[in-house]
Amino acid sequence: MNLEKLLNPKSVAVIGASPTPNKVGNIILKNMIKKRLDKLYPVNPKHKTIEGLKCYRSIKEIKNSIDCVVIATPPKTVVKLLEECAEKNVKAVIIITSGFEEINNLEDSNKIKEIAEKNKIAILGPNCLGALNTHGKLDAVFLPPYKMSRPQQGGVSFISQSGAVGSAVMDLISYYGLGVSKFISYGNATVLDESDFLEYLRKDKETETIILYLEGVKDGKKFLRTLKKTTKEKPVLVLKGGKYRGGQRAAKSHTGNIAGSYLAYKAAFRQAKAIEVDDIYELFDIVKTFTQPLPKGNRVAIITNGGGLGILTADEVEKQGLELAQFNKETEKKLEKILPDYGNVGNPLDLVADANVEGYRKALEILLKAKEVDSIIVITLMQTPLMDDRIINILTKYNGLKKKPIINIAIGGEYTEAFRKIFERNGITTYASPHSAVKALKKLTNYARERPHTSTINR
Amino acid sequence: MNLEKLLNPKSVAVIGASPTPNKVGNIILKNMIKKRLDKLYPVNPKHKTIEGLKCYRSIKEIKNSIDCVVIATPPKTVVKLLEECAEKNVKAVIIITSGFEEINNLEDSNKIKEIAEKNKIAILGPNCLGALNTHGKLDAVFLPPYKMSRPQQGGVSFISQSGAVGSAVMDLISYYGLGVSKFISYGNATVLDESDFLEYLRKDKETETIILYLEGVKDGKKFLRTLKKTTKEKPVLVLKGGKYRGGQRAAKSHTGNIAGSYLAYKAAFRQAKAIEVDDIYELFDIVKTFTQPLPKGNRVAIITNGGGLGILTADEVEKQGLELAQFNKETEKKLEKILPDYGNVGNPLDLVADANVEGYRKALEILLKAKEVDSIIVITLMQTPLMDDRIINILTKYNGLKKKPIINIAIGGEYTEAFRKIFERNGITTYASPHSAVKALKKLTNYARERPHTSTINR
Repeated sequence: MNLEKLLNPKSVAVIGASPTPNKVGNIILKNMIKKRLDKLYPVNPKHKTIEGLKCYRSIKEIKNSIDCVVIATPPKTVVKLLEECAEKNVKAVIIITSGFEEINNLEDSNKIKEIAEKNKIAILGPNCLGALNTHGKLDAVFLPPYKMSRPQQGGVSFISQSGAVGSAVMDLISYYGLGVSKFISYGNATVLDESDFLEYLRKDKETETIILYLEGVKDGKKFLRTLKKTTKEKPVLVLKGGKYRGGQRAAKSHTGNIAGSYLAYKAAFRQAKAIEVDDIYELFDIVKTFTQPLPKGNRVAIITNGGGLGILTADEVEKQGLELAQFNKETEKKLEKILPDYGNVGNPLDLVADANVEGYRKALEILLKAKEVDSIIVITLMQTPLMDDRIINILTKYNGLKKKPIINIAIGGEYTEAFRKIFERNGITTYASPHSAVKALKKLTNYARERPHTSTINR
Repeated sequence: MNLEKLLNPKSVAVIGASPTPNKVGNIILKNMIKKRLDKLYPVNPKHKTIEGLKCYRSIKEIKNSIDCVVIATPPKTVVKLLEECAEKNVKAVIIITSGFEEINNLEDSNKIKEIAEKNKIAILGPNCLGALNTHGKLDAVFLPPYKMSRPQQGGVSFISQSGAVGSAVMDLISYYGLGVSKFISYGNATVLDESDFLEYLRKDKETETIILYLEGVKDGKKFLRTLKKTTKEKPVLVLKGGKYRGGQRAAKSHTGNIAGSYLAYKAAFRQAKAIEVDDIYELFDIVKTFTQPLPKGNRVAIITNGGGLGILTADEVEKQGLELAQFNKETEKKLEKILPDYGNVGNPLDLVADANVEGYRKALEILLKAKEVDSIIVITLMQTPLMDDRIINILTKYNGLKKKPIINIAIGGEYTEAFRKIFERNGITTYASPHSAVKALKKLTNYARERPHTSTINR
């Protein structure tokens, strides 16, 4: 089946296009118009033009060939429209519409499957949010951009069984300026499933790291096989929904899939060397660490201008099974010179609250060269009087060298958050808590040990 | 010793006051000027006026009595200045200056102790950030307000051994509009320690909930006794720094205190029924749940407009040992009426993505009355087309009834974050992840079981 036509179409028809704001068919049409695709065809028998474009009564009226059709009409119309697509030799269809497996409407979903198989149509959905390709001309996601920010071009791709989970994470990612390649909300997976998309993204040159949210997999063997193959080339982060009874029951009525035994999934993820994450916010927290170079080992140095924050971070490093680097004599001597009289050389290296940003520059210079240090956590208590915006250039410079992972921690309100946003948009991986920073670094360190020859996201 | 004069002074002298921006003595003086205290005396022999105020050569020149003196001068001057305070019969002193126990300068710190004991002077510090009282006229915290937001008046008080930890959390709390009573950074605890402040805040009518960050306690028996007494009246959240070897070593050179065995601390916290939190960000995450009414049990209902988010939240509820409420027949019947044809009544209750805000109103109305439900988690996927700002009034109304805890989850970028800020400032407890929301609700539920007759923060 042709996933290229589905995810990178040159001509798109939107069946169910609508002039009414906030209607799915209006939002998708507007999003597609923004993409500046020449061959974009609204289809709706009730209108002659929509959003300034000529509107067609049906796809049969469109003379050109169509790469991809988006269907956003009531459930009872879907099968018939799909038959029209087959007649017109359309090879890719996105069905947004709900009302199939998830409410036990197996009759229609079986027909969808049959038509797809017989005519070799790549179908995304039904019961999904759509798909987005920043490197191409597809934005068939039915959320308005002012509510869900659109990402810039980049190397992260996201396959999500849930539209809600997908859109929340995409929105976070976009807000903090991490780049995205493809976003695929696959819903009921009636025809194409998570494995098909994994396989596509494995080969996709614009994808460097893959995020996967899934509730239930129908073909476990195919999934494990594909996942194993994919993780050999690219990091795959995975979040499982429906781990316990209540969530499993809910998953059944959400996308019509059996969530299955969580232990079996957990074992599969481990066997395939996928990176399992525990929470939706962690998907974001952890994917962004994968913009850092892979560390050569688990020895962490901490630089701080706030003693207590250094202590809490050191606690997390030991709690989570990383190691506090022990500075050798040479490194200690160099560090002694940059501290004030009342400072103590140690790890955490406390530059103390009245240090200015120059201390960070010197410390980074020394620790990037220290062979006994694999990763560096830089805590910036932005609240102190002598901290200022020169810290942005310092972190950007040393982060840009890509020698060792450099992870920032900054916690606070308006002023600190403004800096965190600038940091993140400038490629500096930042966290608002020692726990989440160290957890992400730990995942990156584990990955580097298991897959030392792969690479991370080019940011 | 007179902590009232220390934390609620009517006259304050700032020794080391300075006209130079960003100097500690300038920041504190300016912060105090903002407090509009009539009797505010800058002290510095080098200047005649500072920031428009008459400046004194020494406190001996000041004719009026002084409730509290703030010292922000080099370490070698401190003992002599403290002797002058004793001569002038000053009963409360805040020593900001570093350079004592934490760098093994025991000679001077012993002198500080002697003078304090002999003259009954309440001393905060040395080596601290200062203190703040929103209900009184004290803001001796040496961070500029544009970097660390000042909180509005409220019921949370924070005792922090680390200035960095304290200021980061205060900043977060202020940013999201939670009200604060006292903030006390106590540093080396040479004279007054965490127990003295606990005891003061236990009796303080403006304090409803206490946060405590500590690294090392010198008098364990006094601490356990005081903590036990305090938790009988008010919730006490505690975060321990220096749990493992690296952090403990760092704590010694941070505030000169021995961090001690973490297991012993953990046991003490449990015995005293204090609420231990695991991470600095959790201090903020969990304290704000204490603005909710205490739940009567552990049965949680989830309302959502995003299926996957509901599933992930249900997973967290079961994982963390709370229970998904089982709706009885009557509740189910009522809920059926408010769902669209293709909706399924269940817990999580999925209003589905094309539900408008009216669905939330109806669901809250029903679930607040349902006897089988103790707490309600309301997930708002703000990205969906039909979600709009009427949700603010709906949540505010039902939250304001204070019948059951209502916890919001909203995850996303700019649009969602804007709503989260409005929610939080409007008294609606909100989280950006199911994990942190459920963890906070779990802590509140445990607390309610152990201390059913106490109350939470009036917001």
